[in-house]
Amino acid sequence: MAGSEIERLIQLLARLPGLGPRSARRAVLALFSRRAALFDPLMEAMARAAESVRVCSVCGNIDSSDPCAICADEARDGAQICVVENVASLWAMERTGAFRGRYHVLGGLLSALDGVGPDELGIERLLARAASSGAREIILATPATVEGQTTAHYIAQRLAGRGVAISGLAQGVPMGGELDYLDDGTIGAALAARRAL
Amino acid sequence: MAGSEIERLIQLLARLPGLGPRSARRAVLALFSRRAALFDPLMEAMARAAESVRVCSVCGNIDSSDPCAICADEARDGAQICVVENVASLWAMERTGAFRGRYHVLGGLLSALDGVGPDELGIERLLARAASSGAREIILATPATVEGQTTAHYIAQRLAGRGVAISGLAQGVPMGGELDYLDDGTIGAALAARRAL
Repeated sequence: MAGSEIERLIQLLARLPGLGPRSARRAVLALFSRRAALFDPLMEAMARAAESVRVCSVCGNIDSSDPCAICADEARDGAQICVVENVASLWAMERTGAFRGRYHVLGGLLSALDGVGPDELGIERLLARAASSGAREIILATPATVEGQTTAHYIAQRLAGRGVAISGLAQGVPMGGELDYLDDGTIGAALAARRAL
Repeated sequence: MAGSEIERLIQLLARLPGLGPRSARRAVLALFSRRAALFDPLMEAMARAAESVRVCSVCGNIDSSDPCAICADEARDGAQICVVENVASLWAMERTGAFRGRYHVLGGLLSALDGVGPDELGIERLLARAASSGAREIILATPATVEGQTTAHYIAQRLAGRGVAISGLAQGVPMGGELDYLDDGTIGAALAARRAL
């Protein structure tokens, strides 16, 4: 049907999250029909990114510099470290603009099933960083799933008694959340954590 | 949030059909978290494709050779030319394996609104090819939309009286189509084109 180079490109694009064989095919056709506007700039952007993008040796974020822009930013509060599952979570947190501290990317969650233990997540590195950086608060922002909460619980236990405050994201009704559409767990948690008005 | 190289990559990926800013972000994170398995092969595949992929000067298909594999295939029947809107249509037709002739890619459809006339679609080139290649049948496989059928009608008129058979795809009930879910136009066309059993 199409040349092997085109087929290969389709196969690789189909491996990206959110793309299947059909959408990868459409993407490749778009790339070749808009070669100067899309294909060439994309290839150039990838070459640049391949050269410059690296994992931050301090927090695990990806950026064009190491340490990353967040770790290098003197204006950010080193006393707060927000622990997140992955870079996607870090970016989501940054988009809110609500946090002005620093991050620590675990690169996963504890999972007996997948054989992910404390060593795989570099928990020791986090403990060492919490001690050496003079952090006063560790915010555990792992997801509100069983694995996310297990991981948060484990880290909280390991940090206990080290003179650092440990906190987690509040659980409750999301913005715009109608009770009728929310699951029982969320409503129960919101009720238990109710606050005086 | 992320370095400018990463942002640029996200912006470019978001321009692909089927991808928005959010899925482009997920794709970029997947690319960097699986660098050796995904990012590097994709960059290599793009570099190869950029070098080798070109538009076939005979039919308008894209392939690693010019003329393309279909035009160069002696086993295919040069007496039949299937006229399609774009390369995506050509590939869709090829996937069926039902057609063993050759193609002609218009690169669009007649559209007064978008200022696409016969010159933009290279209709003269198609007429010249139909005459010089000794084709006996031109199959107009433009889509069953107003513009697709207008384009087919125009080409059919221009080809009339040149001693070449002109045909179009049959219209009717699609495979697995339940009448209750089909539009009136499709049912009407299927009824009008009913065949003896």
